[in-house]
Parts: sequence; structure tokens; C-alpha cells
Amino acid sequence: MVEQQSEDLNLDAIFKALGHPTRREILEQLADGPESVSELAEPHDVSLAAVSKHLRVLEDADLLDVEEDGRVRRCHLDAAPLSDVFGWLTRYRVLWEDRFDALADHLENDDR
Amino acid sequence: MVEQQSEDLNLDAIFKALGHPTRREILEQLADGPESVSELAEPHDVSLAAVSKHLRVLEDADLLDVEEDGRVRRCHLDAAPLSDVFGWLTRYRVLWEDRFDALADHLENDDR
Repeated sequence: MVEQQSEDLNLDAIFKALGHPTRREILEQLADGPESVSELAEPHDVSLAAVSKHLRVLEDADLLDVEEDGRVRRCHLDAAPLSDVFGWLTRYRVLWEDRFDALADHLENDDR
Repeated sequence: MVEQQSEDLNLDAIFKALGHPTRREILEQLADGPESVSELAEPHDVSLAAVSKHLRVLEDADLLDVEEDGRVRRCHLDAAPLSDVFGWLTRYRVLWEDRFDALADHLENDDR
């Protein structure tokens, strides 16, 4: 039960982190390699404070590691927690594949 | 750009819907087949109003269809939107697999 709860807490934090387009864009930026906070903020039309807030949400989900490099805060993506989401999703894969199969059958019958 | 924005809106709504343990439990209940609102509410230690609120969030993400059957509201899972999440995640799969490979290498070298 404790394990279930901690898995739930992780998924809550990860899904929360992924539920904002700016945070998904930040992950995309970091997929190519580490960036400083100001490099990350550059393409976004929001304040540095707003970006820092997004970074904290990503850190809370363990998707982001921040390393102090002198005066620069360098951000690294940790994609490992996304594998928990992938694991959770795979239970439902058969259901959406069935749904797409049914849709394809339906369209095929309409063609006749 | 419009397409990108509408994809973003879908992902925002889906990730928001998945970010609560009760809503993930409701999806799990519905994976076995349709249930009425009161059947869905039964195992949860929350009010019927709270469950209805969760159901609305799932409906907003197009994960739930509600069918009026006389006085009964019957809920069906629509797993199709989860395939969007799966598609989004697969871009990152190589990254977490690399991370797990690096961890395995590290553990292997520690054993020597």
C-alpha cells in the first residue's frame, strides 16, 4: 500500500509537470543536452521568475536536475520518471488499439 | 501552428486529468467495461459531488463518454486520447533507455 501511494505521488507530480505547454517545451529543449536557466528562458515569452517556477515543478517530478556551475545554474533532463508514465499507459494500449481497429472496420464497411 | 496549439490543448487536458489518483482509479474501473456514476463512486471515500467533478475533468479530456440511460448516467472509457500521450512519450524513450543503460554499466563496474 505504501509502495502504491509513493508510485501515485510520483505519477501525480509527473502528470502535473507535463500538463503545461511551457514545461513540455523546456523538456524538449533539454532533450538535446543541458542548458542554463537563461538559455532555457530565452525562447519563451515569459519572465525569468515564471520560468524558474516551471523548473521547480519539473524538479519536484524528478524530471530535472539543476547543477550549480559557478554563477550559472545548469539544467539537465532526467527522462527516467517518464518510463513510469509509459508503464502506466501500456495497460491501456490494448484498449485504444481496439478502438482504432473498430473505427477502421467501420470506415471500411462505409466504403462498400 | 494552429494544429500544434490544438494538440497542446489536448495534452494539457489529458495530463491534467491523469494527475489525480482518483481519476486514474476511475479509468482503471472503466477499463473492465462501462459503469454507472454510483457504481464508479462506490469504492471511493469521497462525495458523489466530488466524483462528478472528477468525471467532468475526464470528459474535458475526452477520456470519458457519458450516456444517459433513463435515470442512470452510464460512463464509458475512451482510451484513444491516451495514444497522444504515448506518441508524445516515445520521443523521450531513447533518453530514459540510455539512462538505464548507463546505470546498469555503472552497477556492473562497481561489482568488479
